[in-house]
Amino acid sequence: MGKQKITAGIDIGGTNTVFGFIKENGDSLFSSSIPTNSNEDARKFIIRLTGEIKDSYKVYADNYTLTGIGIAAPSANHFNGTIETPSNLKWGKVNFVTMIKEYFEVPVAITNDANAAALGEYEFGLGKGLKNFIVITLGSGLGSGIIINGNLLYSESGLAGEFGHTIVKPNGRYCNCGRAGCLETYASANGIRRTVFDLIARYTQPSELRNISFNQMTGEIISDLAIKGDPIAIKAFHYTGEILGKALANLATSFVPEAIILFGGLVDSGELLLEPTRNHFENNLLNIHKGKVRILKSTIGNGMAAVLGASSLINKKINNNPIEFDISNNIEKNN
Amino acid sequence: MGKQKITAGIDIGGTNTVFGFIKENGDSLFSSSIPTNSNEDARKFIIRLTGEIKDSYKVYADNYTLTGIGIAAPSANHFNGTIETPSNLKWGKVNFVTMIKEYFEVPVAITNDANAAALGEYEFGLGKGLKNFIVITLGSGLGSGIIINGNLLYSESGLAGEFGHTIVKPNGRYCNCGRAGCLETYASANGIRRTVFDLIARYTQPSELRNISFNQMTGEIISDLAIKGDPIAIKAFHYTGEILGKALANLATSFVPEAIILFGGLVDSGELLLEPTRNHFENNLLNIHKGKVRILKSTIGNGMAAVLGASSLINKKINNNPIEFDISNNIEKNN
Repeated sequence: MGKQKITAGIDIGGTNTVFGFIKENGDSLFSSSIPTNSNEDARKFIIRLTGEIKDSYKVYADNYTLTGIGIAAPSANHFNGTIETPSNLKWGKVNFVTMIKEYFEVPVAITNDANAAALGEYEFGLGKGLKNFIVITLGSGLGSGIIINGNLLYSESGLAGEFGHTIVKPNGRYCNCGRAGCLETYASANGIRRTVFDLIARYTQPSELRNISFNQMTGEIISDLAIKGDPIAIKAFHYTGEILGKALANLATSFVPEAIILFGGLVDSGELLLEPTRNHFENNLLNIHKGKVRILKSTIGNGMAAVLGASSLINKKINNNPIEFDISNNIEKNN
Repeated sequence: MGKQKITAGIDIGGTNTVFGFIKENGDSLFSSSIPTNSNEDARKFIIRLTGEIKDSYKVYADNYTLTGIGIAAPSANHFNGTIETPSNLKWGKVNFVTMIKEYFEVPVAITNDANAAALGEYEFGLGKGLKNFIVITLGSGLGSGIIINGNLLYSESGLAGEFGHTIVKPNGRYCNCGRAGCLETYASANGIRRTVFDLIARYTQPSELRNISFNQMTGEIISDLAIKGDPIAIKAFHYTGEILGKALANLATSFVPEAIILFGGLVDSGELLLEPTRNHFENNLLNIHKGKVRILKSTIGNGMAAVLGASSLINKKINNNPIEFDISNNIEKNN
């Protein structure tokens, strides 16, 4: 029997980088992670990452052939293979695909993390069989991956949509993007933390959240306290769901997707966030769209949607851009 | 020499219905219009419309063959050939395509007016050669047609995006859709009229607009007075451009189109509206998108974009839905 084909999927996060070997049917053969180390430069990071992948692959090389590497990363440009000044890492513009190809003689492709999650849902998750849907990743920020007619939405420049930077509150909270009132300053793990501090300042109710500093506070802590009935934590989830639900209703008014799939750390709180989000979403939809757009929680295991999606960049010719074309294009541009 | 092929394009408006015969290269062979008469029922309207088209066609029948009829109408459902409770006409749900086919033995297709305008721009206007752009029609309301990857954006149900019903002011102006704060209550001919009345109430400056009743006021009057330096009229355009520019910036943050093409009566005011719209658009774009999305004024002659676009429904297999399939599908569903 010949060797089975596998692809590697890599999801570069601000804290951890997850990678895995994925079989053609979407099953994970192996996955692991390394700390990203945000102070390291890109070259050192790539040496460490490719070393780990090579070591892990040795175990499987007798029975499996690595056919390509797909990468999900913040601020990735699919068309020219770069990562461009990610806000969580101290890199400038990095020719990431070209650099990874110095270590592996297989096709390499990259897309941003939310797009990869959308591909993962499309190939292996709740997006299977859907042609128009949106994946929202609620991590430290808010990412969006939009599938239209079965293709990821890219602009001509390779930049993807940034729904998290929709301005939902004119003159609202300051955002790392330099503007104010962006959705992700409210609806994200960092956003709900800011909401808690706003609520603590406004209300007088006792709350365990009053004992925790901003830097120590996490979405998980807020979620745990909300389950225990903490009034400030509960209000924080309601407010987050209200802002998110209304923003999604506006997005759906233009896109009319079949579903919106929520994904990421903040969604682990389950109905705490989903219920107010669904209510405000449905109440703010145009009549003709009511009842037609489902809000779903991703069912793909923790942290794996982007890895799966990244790996499927290799199997599929996404948006009619053959991967090999992308790479040669990339090399031409960068050398 | 054989006969040349032509298609008929029909644009059903609340006041007038424009129709034309369009050659394969997009040239108009003939165009005319009839009053829509909003009190008439759909059957009587169709008898009148088809009669006019047949009479007009007689003149050309020796040299031209009619190969199909494309229709642009408010609240049209492309997939099942219906017009569904248009707000400007006293019709319920009408099986419009089926009814028109009783009078003509050619393929018939329908789409909403803003989508038709987008197709017109795509085939014959500023959208030529673009793959991702948005057409905004600023008439009595605000319509949107979105082209992604060279295809019109439809939802699975055939309903298109309704960007005009994006909520831009929570608890803002009441809208015919039953909600409040929709974009079209500000950015449309009717919206700028409401803005003028708001400004008259708020400011004390003299203005000729103070002599005109709400029902008598039109976008044209406001535009003429703005050109003459009327302070309320100028403010009204600035405010309209501000609301429109900011809303378009949010839309572009998710879609990242190559261009946004503005079209319709209110845009005849030219730079009066375009300048503040462009300024607020650019100022509210995410940094990475700045300078990448053009705001353009349609160059297609008055009222013809939707007729041209409707006619091209027949020439092209839009969104991989062959027209003939749509029609049989439609007949199956409705009989």
